[in-house]
Parts: sequence; C-alpha cells; structure tokens
Amino acid sequence: MQRTVIIDALKSTALNQPINVRGWVRSRRGNKQVCFIALNDGSTIQNIQIVVDLTQFSEDQLKPVTTGSCISATGILVPSQGAGQAVEIQLTELEIYGTADPETYPLQKKGLSMEYLRTIAHLRPRTNTFGAVFRIRHHMTMAIHTYFHEHGFFNFHTPLITASDCEGAGQMFQVTTKNLYNLKKDENGKIDYSDDFFGKQASLTVSGQLEGELAAMALGKIYTFGPTFRAENSNTPRHLAEFWMIEPEVAFIDKSELMDLEEDFIKYCVRWALNNCMDDLEFLNQYVDPEHKLIERMRSVVDTEFVRLPYTEGIAILQEAIKNGQKFEFPCNWGDDISSEHERYLVEKHFGKPVIMTDYPKDIKAFYMKVNEDGKTVQGTDVLFPQIGEIIGGSVREESLDKLNAEIERRHIPMKDMWWYLDTRRFGAAPHAGFGLGFERLMLFVTGMQNIRDVIPFPRTPKTAEF
Amino acid sequence: MQRTVIIDALKSTALNQPINVRGWVRSRRGNKQVCFIALNDGSTIQNIQIVVDLTQFSEDQLKPVTTGSCISATGILVPSQGAGQAVEIQLTELEIYGTADPETYPLQKKGLSMEYLRTIAHLRPRTNTFGAVFRIRHHMTMAIHTYFHEHGFFNFHTPLITASDCEGAGQMFQVTTKNLYNLKKDENGKIDYSDDFFGKQASLTVSGQLEGELAAMALGKIYTFGPTFRAENSNTPRHLAEFWMIEPEVAFIDKSELMDLEEDFIKYCVRWALNNCMDDLEFLNQYVDPEHKLIERMRSVVDTEFVRLPYTEGIAILQEAIKNGQKFEFPCNWGDDISSEHERYLVEKHFGKPVIMTDYPKDIKAFYMKVNEDGKTVQGTDVLFPQIGEIIGGSVREESLDKLNAEIERRHIPMKDMWWYLDTRRFGAAPHAGFGLGFERLMLFVTGMQNIRDVIPFPRTPKTAEF
Repeated sequence: MQRTVIIDALKSTALNQPINVRGWVRSRRGNKQVCFIALNDGSTIQNIQIVVDLTQFSEDQLKPVTTGSCISATGILVPSQGAGQAVEIQLTELEIYGTADPETYPLQKKGLSMEYLRTIAHLRPRTNTFGAVFRIRHHMTMAIHTYFHEHGFFNFHTPLITASDCEGAGQMFQVTTKNLYNLKKDENGKIDYSDDFFGKQASLTVSGQLEGELAAMALGKIYTFGPTFRAENSNTPRHLAEFWMIEPEVAFIDKSELMDLEEDFIKYCVRWALNNCMDDLEFLNQYVDPEHKLIERMRSVVDTEFVRLPYTEGIAILQEAIKNGQKFEFPCNWGDDISSEHERYLVEKHFGKPVIMTDYPKDIKAFYMKVNEDGKTVQGTDVLFPQIGEIIGGSVREESLDKLNAEIERRHIPMKDMWWYLDTRRFGAAPHAGFGLGFERLMLFVTGMQNIRDVIPFPRTPKTAEF
Repeated sequence: MQRTVIIDALKSTALNQPINVRGWVRSRRGNKQVCFIALNDGSTIQNIQIVVDLTQFSEDQLKPVTTGSCISATGILVPSQGAGQAVEIQLTELEIYGTADPETYPLQKKGLSMEYLRTIAHLRPRTNTFGAVFRIRHHMTMAIHTYFHEHGFFNFHTPLITASDCEGAGQMFQVTTKNLYNLKKDENGKIDYSDDFFGKQASLTVSGQLEGELAAMALGKIYTFGPTFRAENSNTPRHLAEFWMIEPEVAFIDKSELMDLEEDFIKYCVRWALNNCMDDLEFLNQYVDPEHKLIERMRSVVDTEFVRLPYTEGIAILQEAIKNGQKFEFPCNWGDDISSEHERYLVEKHFGKPVIMTDYPKDIKAFYMKVNEDGKTVQGTDVLFPQIGEIIGGSVREESLDKLNAEIERRHIPMKDMWWYLDTRRFGAAPHAGFGLGFERLMLFVTGMQNIRDVIPFPRTPKTAEF
C-alpha cells in the first residue's frame, strides 16, 4: 500500500479509508484493552496516534514496538476520540522495520540535557526540539535563496580553499596533503610547499566577500551562502569553527539602499518562519525559550521599523546611560569597539527594537570600507538584534583604487596575493556595497536556542569534530 | 534618478520617458554624428544600446567610455531603429564610475581562449560566456532547492571538517592548526594531535552521505547541497579538488522509487533551465557548444523516459557490440567496472537516451549498498547521461546491522570512529535510499562547456588555488 506522509495524514479528509504510515515510535501507552502508539516520521513535529485493539494484536506482536523503533502501520483513518488531534489510525496491519532496545536506546528518557544531547548529535534530530530546529533551518535556507532569487540576485559559489587571505591571518585552518613525517624544507629552513597539493600554502576561507565583490562587478547582484571557517580558540555559546555565512554584494547601491536591503531581507526571513513553521515555533516557544517570548520577539521584528543610528550618536546615548547609573563591563568612548553589552543595551533597553548602527570610526573596521567625507568614519551598517547583538555586518565598499591602496599601506596589509581584488578598482570600478550574515546567528534568533552548537547539526569547536 | 536594471529596461513599455541604467561598457562604435554604446549590467546577457548624439557630447566626455569601463547613463527610452533590440536609450547625461585602460584591460579582445580566461578568473564573469554560465549556475541552485522543498525534503548541512571517514582515505585534505615547524611526536614517533585544534587528526569531507543518513532516520527526507573535497592528483577536464555535491537521502523508499526520484529530479532541473535561461542557453548553443546541439540534448532528456538497465544486461549489450566490431579501450566482462566509454556507448549509441544502470556486482560498489537476494549484486542505481557519462550515483542502503557489519568485516573497513553510523541500524533502522549528484557534472550538461574548470567560479585543481 502507498505510504502517506504523516503531515498529510493529519490533514487528510479521507475518513474511514485505509491508510499506511511509517515512522519512528515516540511513545506507547495504554491499558489491557487498547494501546496507543505515537508515531512520528519527521515531516512535522506532530505525531499521529495509532490505536491498537488488543483483541486483534498479541503482546508478542507489540513487544518490539518501543520508543525509537521503526514501524509501518496500516489501518483505517478515523476521527480521533482523544483531544489534540483530528484523526487517528485504527491499526489493522503492523510491520516492524527496526527495533530499539529500551535498555540501550539513548533517547528513552525525556528531559535530557542539551549537553548530553550534543554527545549523541547523530540521534538528537529524533527529538522534538532538534526536529523543530532543523526543519526551521531548512526553511531559513529556502527563505534566503527565495528572497535573493526574487530580487534579481545570483547565487555565487566562492571557493573554500584559498591561498590568499588578508583578513584572517592566524585564525585560519591550514589545508595540506603534505606528509607531515617528512617535511621538505628549503635552504632557509622554510617549509617547501612546492610539492603540496596546490603548490603553495593553502587555508580554509574566513569569508567569501572579496570573491563576491569580483562577481558583483560582472553580474550586478550576487550572494554567497556557504560554509566559512575560523580557527579561533573560543569555547563560547556563540562561536563555531565551521559555520554558514550569507554574503550578498550589490553594484550601484549606496548606504541608504544597503540598509533598506538588510532590513527587508532579515524581516523576510523572520516572516517566512512565522508563516511556515508555526507548529515548530510554538513548541520551541513553550518548551525551549526561557521566557516563552520567542514568537513575540519574532513578531516585534517584522512589525517594526529598525532604528538607524550613527555610531557617534550611539556612543552619546551609552555615555548618557552611564551618567544615569548604567553599569557596563567595557568602556565606551568614541573610538572604542561597541561590545555586545552595549549593543544589547541600545536594542533591548533604549530603543526596544532592532538598530542599524552606521558610520563607525575607521580604525575599528576593515580596510575595504568606504571612508566618509569627515575622513574619520566609514560607511559600515551593522544590524543589532535583541538577544543576539550583531546579526549583520555590512558596509559600502571603497571603490577608489587610490584610497583603497592608501588604506592598505597605512595598515601594512600584505596584498601581494591580492592583485585580483584590486583589479576590481582598476577596471570598471563601480560603487557597491554588501553585508555578511552568520546563518547560525539568524538560527538562534528564530529558534530561541541558547547555544550556537544546538542550531547546526554537527558543531565543530575546539577539541570537537565528532560525527 | 532611480536606476532601472537592464533586463527590465529592455522589456519596459515606458517609451519616451526618462530612464537611468548603470553597467559596464561592452563596446563602443559609431561615426562622426552618433556613437553607440553597448551596456551590460549582468542582469541578462542582452546589452542595452545607448545612442549618443555627438553634437551634445564632446569627444573628451566620451573618451573614458571604453570597453570595460563602468558608467551611469541617463536618457530617454525610445523604440530602437536598429535590429536586435526593441528599445534603446538616447543619452542625455553621462557619469563615469570607473575607467578601464584599453592598454591594460585584459578583456579588450574577443575570442580569448578558455585557458587564458582561467588565468583571469576574477574578470571572466564579465564575458558573455561566463556571465551565461554563472547565471545558469544560480538557476540550477534554485531549481535544486525548489524541487526538494516542494517534495517535502529538508536541506541538511552536514559538516565539512571531519575526524572520521572510511571511504576516502588517502584522497583527503588534512585540516590543521599545528605549527609545522615544531611538530610534537609521541614516544612511538607518531605525531601528537592532542594539541591540534580538534584534538585529533581532521580532514575535509569527501561526502555528506553518512551524516545525511542519520538525518533521514529522523526527518524522513533530507538533502545536502554543499562543497566536497577530493585530494586526487587528477589533472583532467572532469576533476576538481573542491566541488559542490547534492545528496538526498530518503527513508521508506525502495529501488524503484529511488529511480523515479532520480529521473524526476534531474528532468526538473533541466526543464528549469529551458524555462528560465533561454537567452543564455541560445548564446551557449550557438557560440560554445561544438555541435550547436546543447538545447537539443537538453530537450531530449526532459522528453524521454530513461532506460532502466541491470548491469548484467548492460554487459551483455556491450559484449554483443564487441562481437560486432565495436572497439573499447577497457575490457568489459561481468564484474568489471563500467568505464566512461562503455557508459557513453550505451547512452549515445545503443539507446540514444539516458540510462539508469542498476544492480552492480557488489565488489565494484561501496560497502553500504543493499545486497540483492542473489548475494552477488547490490541495489545501485546510477544515472548515465549523454556527453557526461555518470551524472548520478545512487543506491538503496543496507539497513540490516548484521549484513552491514559482515560487509564491513569482509572489506576490512576500519569503523572504530563510525559507531554513530552503525547506530542508525541499531536503533529504529528503516529501509532507505539516496543518491549523489556532482553539481558541476550537471552544470556541464546544461551549459555545453567542455571543461569542469569553466563551470565553477574559481576552480581548485592540482597546483591551482588562485583568487
């Protein structure tokens, strides 16, 4: 018999008709006359209830039906007599695909800690929480691709292995096929990479932005969406060594249009989740979000106009707050980096809504940002979110070759491998701008999860590369 | 004035109205009275023609307008008097964003070789050919995500850095943060990885399948779409060290349903290109495909039912062909691997349509494939395409823990780091199947390009990791 996916079965109106569903047993309970199996197949967080008449099925037949086992259940779809579901299935035929020994199956118990579930990351997608998180992760992927596609952007695959990088030196993973037991060195004692796979030292990229800029100078509007790497030895709930990043880059837009894009894009993603993932969001809102305010936070973002705040004004607000008794761990004088506590004060306490902070002092930002006429600030446009802090880092890019070269020189950035990047300013330079969004930061916001390791299937962090 | 994207300008019906377009000059020609600028902004392969009345603009004003320069052109949109376009723009205002010195701009000349263009991969997206290829690449990305989304699959991000792999040993890139000048070794002379970033030896993944199977056992239907790595020292037009792969994995389907999925999916992608990329396809068909049969080949695939051919029957056909005088470089007796020449003979000469070859001898296929009742063949389902050969490699997976363990033992596969994979068969095992599609193989088919380095923005191959 043709299988029906549970998300469809729950909505089916073919009552009193035969139906077949397949999935994993979430629980089994009952009495001497009847037993109820809650079955889930991953298509939705909702289980379908299988009702077993114990005059028709023997205890032996049902013995393998334990939590975690995999079955095929054929029966009649009937209106449910219990609360919580419209329909249920009266079992007529049962097939066991795979058992799950109750003595050893790790997901027997409820209320397992997030820390423990990380040690069984290969099984945690079978829980309600992680099923919800990974369905939402899929939906965010679709939202991102659909938004850019509908707005005329082209997805562009920038390389992951790179032999040139000027930003992340020291925080990069080296990629090699060299035999480490027999490292050839040259006469100066330097490792000879001529026999390495790429003929030179190679690393994993920390950003696709520079290559993305090349593409924007040809295709007009592009975005990258792929894995990115930082070999930062940070064991925090907010750092991953391998994470996914979205980096759009657009020719012919200015700072104001860039901010419009950032705001429109992120609202679109949050709205997509609200429109398409409500079952999962309601679960996370109730059982995962510490304040049960996940959905409220998400709604407040899509319904509000973001504040656009120059850094200099932001510093003034923070200093005023300090004067009025607000305590911060880090200083905040003009020229200092804005730390997470400052961001959250502005967003959560002062404005009560997302903030796009702009025009940062140039020395706290990257070399490629366009300098304002004051000569002191650059056209950065970072989006700060409640709970998360910085969720988007954006900027207008400096398109003048002379100004860019001067900045590179002032900062002593080694650019010998970066001639190709400067060619974008040498040949047909265009005003352009773009931003980067750490995908897992967005995931934290739309799931209410507290640790970034719990919004990616298999987190890579210092000393951890399991599965 | 608000900018209009050229793909929209060319379709605009706002005739005799002011319009602003911005882009890169593809060519400039004319006479003493009038000059014509062909402008492209990447939104489409079509240029828009800017007509310049030389009584209104001086030679000095126009001097920087050379091939490759970037301009903003404001004017009046009028019906075109020339052939080849419906509308053109009579220039009223010109702004130069960036020049391109004709002496040094590498894309001055037409007819540059593919080999040369690879050396300027940072600029080649500005050519008609590569603009077309990368727009189509975007469209194929959208087709893939849209297909799976509409069919109830969840996109699942499997890790790129891995500390366990049983398939690709010897062909993997090592990932390390170790100081290679001071490699700590243990008492047995083995390199001590305890101080490496992940606390053990780590590599770049060769496939997300095994992690994908974990997810399918929870979410039911998943697909991966991400970069994959092979440190194979192959300098051929068909190998990349870094390439993108699509790997769906589905619970509760059998061999026949898997073949349906493979055929339906790939037809959907090719149909998407035909429906959405015809301008680019027509260019590639005329100027890139050696036989000008790109579109014909694509149409033939979407309109035909694929042949489903057991390996054993395929071998019989090939041996019959040899008997009738067909010459092959490699032998083809039962048990031999099917080589590319054999695949293409079957697809292009014998059947004249795509072939799904099934039920291969188990010793030429991977350990995880489900063994048929004959004990000799496995339920592989590879899709073979004209021009390309194998484009999809699929199989039903062995779901029995005992059979899988026996096969692992028979092959002496070291599984000590793979306990988590075997857990899928230990707890709630389900029948399941999946396939892998090399994205660049698909790209070759839908562009007619001859070298895989020309369908990915920045190819990584032995001795090459530029840009």
